[in-house]
Amino acid sequence: MSSHSLEEEPHGLPKGRVETLVDGVFAIAMTILVLGLRVPEGDAGPELRVRLAALLAKLATYALSFVMLGVLWIGHQYQMHYIRRVDRPLIWLNLIFLLAITFLPFSTALLGNCYREPLAVAIYGGTVMVAGTFLLLHWRYALGNLVVPDLHANVVRLLPARIFVGLALSALAVALGFVDTRLSLMVFLSMPLVYLVRSRVDRYTQR
Amino acid sequence: MSSHSLEEEPHGLPKGRVETLVDGVFAIAMTILVLGLRVPEGDAGPELRVRLAALLAKLATYALSFVMLGVLWIGHQYQMHYIRRVDRPLIWLNLIFLLAITFLPFSTALLGNCYREPLAVAIYGGTVMVAGTFLLLHWRYALGNLVVPDLHANVVRLLPARIFVGLALSALAVALGFVDTRLSLMVFLSMPLVYLVRSRVDRYTQR
Amino acid sequence: MSSHSLEEEPHGLPKGRVETLVDGVFAIAMTILVLGLRVPEGDAGPELRVRLAALLAKLATYALSFVMLGVLWIGHQYQMHYIRRVDRPLIWLNLIFLLAITFLPFSTALLGNCYREPLAVAIYGGTVMVAGTFLLLHWRYALGNLVVPDLHANVVRLLPARIFVGLALSALAVALGFVDTRLSLMVFLSMPLVYLVRSRVDRYTQR
Amino acid sequence: MSSHSLEEEPHGLPKGRVETLVDGVFAIAMTILVLGLRVPEGDAGPELRVRLAALLAKLATYALSFVMLGVLWIGHQYQMHYIRRVDRPLIWLNLIFLLAITFLPFSTALLGNCYREPLAVAIYGGTVMVAGTFLLLHWRYALGNLVVPDLHANVVRLLPARIFVGLALSALAVALGFVDTRLSLMVFLSMPLVYLVRSRVDRYTQR
Repeated sequence: MSSHSLEEEPHGLPKGRVETLVDGVFAIAMTILVLGLRVPEGDAGPELRVRLAALLAKLATYALSFVMLGVLWIGHQYQMHYIRRVDRPLIWLNLIFLLAITFLPFSTALLGNCYREPLAVAIYGGTVMVAGTFLLLHWRYALGNLVVPDLHANVVRLLPARIFVGLALSALAVALGFVDTRLSLMVFLSMPLVYLVRSRVDRYTQR
Repeated sequence: MSSHSLEEEPHGLPKGRVETLVDGVFAIAMTILVLGLRVPEGDAGPELRVRLAALLAKLATYALSFVMLGVLWIGHQYQMHYIRRVDRPLIWLNLIFLLAITFLPFSTALLGNCYREPLAVAIYGGTVMVAGTFLLLHWRYALGNLVVPDLHANVVRLLPARIFVGLALSALAVALGFVDTRLSLMVFLSMPLVYLVRSRVDRYTQR
Repeated sequence: MSSHSLEEEPHGLPKGRVETLVDGVFAIAMTILVLGLRVPEGDAGPELRVRLAALLAKLATYALSFVMLGVLWIGHQYQMHYIRRVDRPLIWLNLIFLLAITFLPFSTALLGNCYREPLAVAIYGGTVMVAGTFLLLHWRYALGNLVVPDLHANVVRLLPARIFVGLALSALAVALGFVDTRLSLMVFLSMPLVYLVRSRVDRYTQR
Repeated sequence: MSSHSLEEEPHGLPKGRVETLVDGVFAIAMTILVLGLRVPEGDAGPELRVRLAALLAKLATYALSFVMLGVLWIGHQYQMHYIRRVDRPLIWLNLIFLLAITFLPFSTALLGNCYREPLAVAIYGGTVMVAGTFLLLHWRYALGNLVVPDLHANVVRLLPARIFVGLALSALAVALGFVDTRLSLMVFLSMPLVYLVRSRVDRYTQR
């Protein structure tokens, strides 16, 4: 019965398994970010402080990427909240989104190692932008005929607006990287703050 | 109550935990593919471009395997959509399917390292074929008495047809590897495109 | 509402999250077993065959442990099928069971590396026996007042019987290791076959 | 329908996906702890015993951290049991809690390597304290208007009390580390015992 009682809906599969796969990939990506930090070996004595200090840039990119993943995961969760069913194209949009997510631990380690290289900044920003772009396409496609029928116009408008902000900031960070990569890092670090602010879109989640 | 109200069904356990395990294994396999990419160390300067270029073959096999995993995951999801309950043999067919899935990161790294070796191509293609074969056996076995009662004849026919295409293309890629492994890679890369096409089987998912 | 409508039940939390955690740990343990296989580097040419052959012992222990994890996961799933709620002691029995599961990738790599050492065999068999013992204690404790009310006497009897067989075989394998570790490996490899046989306990799963 | 029938509730998203993400991160963190143990290579012969003995400190920190993760996971589960919906700030409190959880495998490996360094003890204790603090803030925030309406006053009081005990013991362990790190380890190892005791809060879980 369970998944078969929705016969009034047009087509598609239940969304549960896509959500489980997405949550699983995010959980793993978040957790393996830390594998990029090499643990100091042996009884390092007074040297331990120095060797941990050398990890600071990697620690910062780990925390940054963790929060980026949080922002993207929340964005996905809000979209799925309004989506009733998934079909083959929507599943593929989810998978390409996840491809960017699984690539982020690589981009993160690259940025942590080579944070003075515009190329590393561009690859990092590019990964975030691919994820954001496919989250946007995901919403656009779902609006076709997979969302709940009584969707408020503000939700339709506000969800992509939040993604556009992220895409614009990422593009800015990549561009600034060719001037000074420290400017890029400042932009990246400011991005999560933008998303911590409670959004107007939150008013519509009780449906 | 929940899982116990289906007393009209013949036997077996609820399917939820098999789905969670399968989704978990796919999520992890997809995410650890990227661990095969070794991140360039230090401030590489102009050399960074060269060192990233050296990763291109591994990047291509990573993306290829991610999409292969996507194809296999979607295939599994469609089957489980029509399956009501799982029993011991069906769980074991799932587990052997997952054994091939967990082996794919190894096959992928091997192909990325040795893409000119017919043996590496054969191991990669063989892994995909084992996964496909057990997905096929999974469907055959489930058709016995574990699927929903009102299954459309087209679903019965179309689901395995899609797997047969994949098995045939994989076999072709392995065979071509003994001529020129570049031909194999072209066949592998074409496989996901076959599955991106919306299928006639999708018309029956609303049940 | 959902999780709060079971007010007739004596105490405890819903079992969903324990199942998700257990499924997650098994999915990860199954998938990271393969990380123990070191992928041959570079274009190995004719040497590739030799280097892959050198991995055969590790491949065998990987497949063995995958199937062992499958056996233990299925055992857990059957128990949880008859358990209604979880309480703090039952959660801890689950966690100690999972501690053994997370240790199995280490024991597996050790056995693959040192399969001629009785100590490696004993550690491997010991890990499996700790997992089996806690699965047994899990069932004993749950029988107290956490299982469904109308549990068939055969289920009460048959579920632990299957675990006892595994414990006895593991103990035999460890003991034989001090004579010849090849005998141990034969016993370990025979264990999954015992569990592939459809059990009489399966007749009672439709409740 | 499913997630949309709770229109009497004030705001927020269903809690299911936060639970799945949290369970996923804990499952992975628990399982990758063991990756810190380097498996002895080759047929080590009589040396194997010596090389395994050298791993004992890492084994102890692995088991310690596994149980710490168990304590924190159970604490989170009890809170979520009484929480009806999640909103954006609560999701972020969950994410920062998870940031500390994903950092624990690093802190654990550091403690296993440098257990005589007060700094390593402080980083380990600090990670546990950050997790505990955000679990506390999580409860405080949820009490606002996200918990079930008929929450017993004892639950409101007892849940944070258990966390305070852990925070106090962690702070004590960190402080003692500057005297003798062996004292710290004794405090850390005693912490799980405190939580194994069945709590008075368990009487209220049947709602």
